[in-house]
Amino acid sequence: MNPTALVLLDYFGIAVFAISGALLAAEKRQTLVTFIFFAVATGVGGGTLRDLLIGAPVFWVHANATLLMCIAAALLVWVASRRSFSGKALLWFDAAGIAAYATYGAAKALAFGVAPVPAFAMGVLTACVGGIIRDVLAGEPSILMRPELYVTAAALSSGLFVVLTLAGLAPWIGAALAGAAGFGLRGAAIARGWSLPAYRD
Amino acid sequence: MNPTALVLLDYFGIAVFAISGALLAAEKRQTLVTFIFFAVATGVGGGTLRDLLIGAPVFWVHANATLLMCIAAALLVWVASRRSFSGKALLWFDAAGIAAYATYGAAKALAFGVAPVPAFAMGVLTACVGGIIRDVLAGEPSILMRPELYVTAAALSSGLFVVLTLAGLAPWIGAALAGAAGFGLRGAAIARGWSLPAYRD
Amino acid sequence: MNPTALVLLDYFGIAVFAISGALLAAEKRQTLVTFIFFAVATGVGGGTLRDLLIGAPVFWVHANATLLMCIAAALLVWVASRRSFSGKALLWFDAAGIAAYATYGAAKALAFGVAPVPAFAMGVLTACVGGIIRDVLAGEPSILMRPELYVTAAALSSGLFVVLTLAGLAPWIGAALAGAAGFGLRGAAIARGWSLPAYRD
Repeated sequence: MNPTALVLLDYFGIAVFAISGALLAAEKRQTLVTFIFFAVATGVGGGTLRDLLIGAPVFWVHANATLLMCIAAALLVWVASRRSFSGKALLWFDAAGIAAYATYGAAKALAFGVAPVPAFAMGVLTACVGGIIRDVLAGEPSILMRPELYVTAAALSSGLFVVLTLAGLAPWIGAALAGAAGFGLRGAAIARGWSLPAYRD
Repeated sequence: MNPTALVLLDYFGIAVFAISGALLAAEKRQTLVTFIFFAVATGVGGGTLRDLLIGAPVFWVHANATLLMCIAAALLVWVASRRSFSGKALLWFDAAGIAAYATYGAAKALAFGVAPVPAFAMGVLTACVGGIIRDVLAGEPSILMRPELYVTAAALSSGLFVVLTLAGLAPWIGAALAGAAGFGLRGAAIARGWSLPAYRD
Repeated sequence: MNPTALVLLDYFGIAVFAISGALLAAEKRQTLVTFIFFAVATGVGGGTLRDLLIGAPVFWVHANATLLMCIAAALLVWVASRRSFSGKALLWFDAAGIAAYATYGAAKALAFGVAPVPAFAMGVLTACVGGIIRDVLAGEPSILMRPELYVTAAALSSGLFVVLTLAGLAPWIGAALAGAAGFGLRGAAIARGWSLPAYRD
């Protein structure tokens, strides 16, 4: 894949998730320091776990830019007032963030020689763990526990990318298809309320 | 220790914990995707933390089998209906899982040159952290907070294995004794309601 | 910095946080095993995450002393009765622990060649993550969610140390100034109830 495109995917995911972390801090009427903590934990949490698991150097430790982006996202939410972020708009950005991050996570894992099933899991983790940490820190029910197609959309992007790559497709085509599929599924969940059936016995 | 025996111990622990994760998802009326997430987090959580701490490659990242086992456990619970898993039977399987996993965790840590007290801690972590992650994700009071002999049984298996190994016993004898002791203690807690005294001031 | 001074800073932070973990277990009327688990998780949690992130060997894995200190702290709280630990005294010890640990965490990260902004983050994590794990395990609202100057004091110590080091100051002077500043700020929060403004929209 074009390295610049990869870096942009990555930054886009970080920024979207950092904003969603800061917005939860705003909803909970927290201080600026907590805004920053939530923005950082949500923005880099998933990728951090992925890098630890695959044995890669943790992506934000040897550069200043990533954390500064998260801090800027927190300041932006603090200054701009939470109302500037329409809930609907944020949901759509978040949908793009999930699709981008799940695809990127799977691609990075495959590039590190991870086996296909764990590489698929890395895509899901990269997209979802930041939000899970955010919810656990805030004492909220986790996104995991909601029936809407959230983790499922990440799984679609990640799984499709792994399958298409194993099938020999050029990575950038695989990434475009996988990202679009996950974004489409998440979009359908947002626009039409699609959800998975819950367990009943 | 016989490598095949070690691998079997390991798989047994993963399967039992994956089922217990999926059963909690069933109790909470979750979707199939959440079943899988819980089965994976509970099945591999403890061993993952152990491997990160001792600097070993994370055990499930370079093979497909472990995650596939966890996914199969989730599907099994989803299809078979939660009622097929009698609570009592599961408790006993879980007791065997704790004893097996605590022993295995301590053995792996010692094999990596970890000092005795941390190796003991690794056994306890391997056996208990999957369940703790499961409970935190579900918003349940953690197994840590219950007075029953759960963490204590893991500590007995792990500690005994470290002591017997330092005393020069053959690893497979140490493992058999340590596993039996932890299983026996946890069994007594299940059968007779044994528990530890709580703090009072 | 004088290596002995560094080691003492480190041990002081571990002991203070281990005691605070055991005290929360006491407040929750837990068993001795849970006391030990909380003392360990609170005492070494922050430094463990730091070491994993910067790629250092986890500090307590290759020596027995650290875990034994945490276990001793748990036994001390169990035996001495929680009332022996005046809440006010503990708050002040904890303030010293935060300042010491934040400074130490930033110093260790810089020594490992981490970039300045992430090194600052490592100081904050080292000081705060143990307490966050303790609160999540116990199902308490996390210290993150309180407006008092807690994370902020850690950020002051850590940030000041990084800035003074980049400015070329001798590490031991930087550490003394940074530690004193964080301790002073946290002290003012304790003595005068200083806190940060919460978000309002």
